[in-house]
Amino acid sequence: MKIAIQGIPGSFHYQVALDYFGTDAEIVSYRIFEEVAKSVRLGNADFGVMAIENSIAGAILPNYELIDRYELFVKDEYYLPISHNLMALKGQKIEALSEVRSHPMALLQCKKFFSQFPSIKMMDDVDTASVAKRIAEEQLAGVGAIASKAAAEIYGLEILASDIQTVQNNFTRFIILQDTRSKSDFTPNKASLKITVNNEKGVLAKLLTLMSERGLDLSKIQSIPVMEKPWEYSFFIDTQFEDYGQYQQAISEINKRFGEVTVFGEYLNRK
Amino acid sequence: MKIAIQGIPGSFHYQVALDYFGTDAEIVSYRIFEEVAKSVRLGNADFGVMAIENSIAGAILPNYELIDRYELFVKDEYYLPISHNLMALKGQKIEALSEVRSHPMALLQCKKFFSQFPSIKMMDDVDTASVAKRIAEEQLAGVGAIASKAAAEIYGLEILASDIQTVQNNFTRFIILQDTRSKSDFTPNKASLKITVNNEKGVLAKLLTLMSERGLDLSKIQSIPVMEKPWEYSFFIDTQFEDYGQYQQAISEINKRFGEVTVFGEYLNRK
Repeated sequence: MKIAIQGIPGSFHYQVALDYFGTDAEIVSYRIFEEVAKSVRLGNADFGVMAIENSIAGAILPNYELIDRYELFVKDEYYLPISHNLMALKGQKIEALSEVRSHPMALLQCKKFFSQFPSIKMMDDVDTASVAKRIAEEQLAGVGAIASKAAAEIYGLEILASDIQTVQNNFTRFIILQDTRSKSDFTPNKASLKITVNNEKGVLAKLLTLMSERGLDLSKIQSIPVMEKPWEYSFFIDTQFEDYGQYQQAISEINKRFGEVTVFGEYLNRK
Repeated sequence: MKIAIQGIPGSFHYQVALDYFGTDAEIVSYRIFEEVAKSVRLGNADFGVMAIENSIAGAILPNYELIDRYELFVKDEYYLPISHNLMALKGQKIEALSEVRSHPMALLQCKKFFSQFPSIKMMDDVDTASVAKRIAEEQLAGVGAIASKAAAEIYGLEILASDIQTVQNNFTRFIILQDTRSKSDFTPNKASLKITVNNEKGVLAKLLTLMSERGLDLSKIQSIPVMEKPWEYSFFIDTQFEDYGQYQQAISEINKRFGEVTVFGEYLNRK
């Protein structure tokens, strides 16, 4: 089984692919999310893994647009606990570090920890795992990385401090993508939708009121202008519900009253 | 006057900085949006320019989060017409090209044009202007870039075809950022807000109904989970209105009934 991810071994996507699909799966790395979507679409990978919320990976909000454009399906979701760890070449002490490099969001989430070490400069870098890789490959003494435990293991670095993020019990949400809709043997209680509405006054308020009345809870909403039709808006919406029959009725009602609904996927809430 | 942008000379941000601030301004290039926000915050630049909607720049949706985190203000908005142009080393014909490189979104927007030239391979690259730069620096024959007219001029390339995007009259929305709220001599009719609400059932439907009743039109909405408080949600909202007094009343009402409102900026709708 081939799994497409963005990022190198030791990245958060790599971790999720391992956790979800196990060590037998072949993990294929891509530079950008667009290539992950393409790979799943063309059948070069069986599944894709994509961060969708709260990730330090940066540009994750546009990912629903890729799912839409490449006509992919959301098979499942997965929550990875955020765990930042300070690592460096073996045998070094924290006090010997002059700088620490990572993604700006990871640095931000660990700022409190580093306030104890004012001599360590915090430097923005492109991501987390690639700094670990560079430290190992170029044998950079005095430089620390903030990355996952898997990154320390893969690149042979020593963890100097574990779970140094300020906020504990924080998660990044990932989705598992596939090219075709699979038959499920469960009753879904969560769905990812795209709803395109005409730009009449207050239309979103009316749409959300209908959803709320039908027992559909909103866990995510994101508006996107429709490129070709300046008077229309689309919304990417994630919704949770208890009654699948009522959800299906609501979808058909939205289709009639508001506009086109695309269902990206129906799955189980894993939170 | 110093203007912070993401991207190199010839990029879309560069174009907007020139259009908006004129040729006397000093344009300072950064690699990532986070550095633009930081630069404005620390006073290293007087203003920043940031794509916020519809851009081919990729990761633009998270930019409101940067404005929020660095406590910046939105001074104005600016719409740049999307104009893609095919360029290559001087003296080359389109038929002599074996590949064209650009940002995946730019390639997608010009797909129809290239269907006339099936021998030209379309290759994803990191952005638009940097390909133009590379073609010039490395004297790459047979390779085309899709980028702005400014990029062709700056890097001495020849434009082989202008405005090759399929959809005409399409715009990218940018915002002009500053560190402090400036006094305005006009009455605003648009605002960028962050509203944090408790996660009670149907709260967003109620909030939007109130906004609609008070004459506030929605032109953008984006939900973000509040990291530290798993039961709360924030929304980045852009709203347009005709009556500034009524808008102000609505804001104070939202503050009382729903939760905290942060005003990122109040400005004139330029669309």
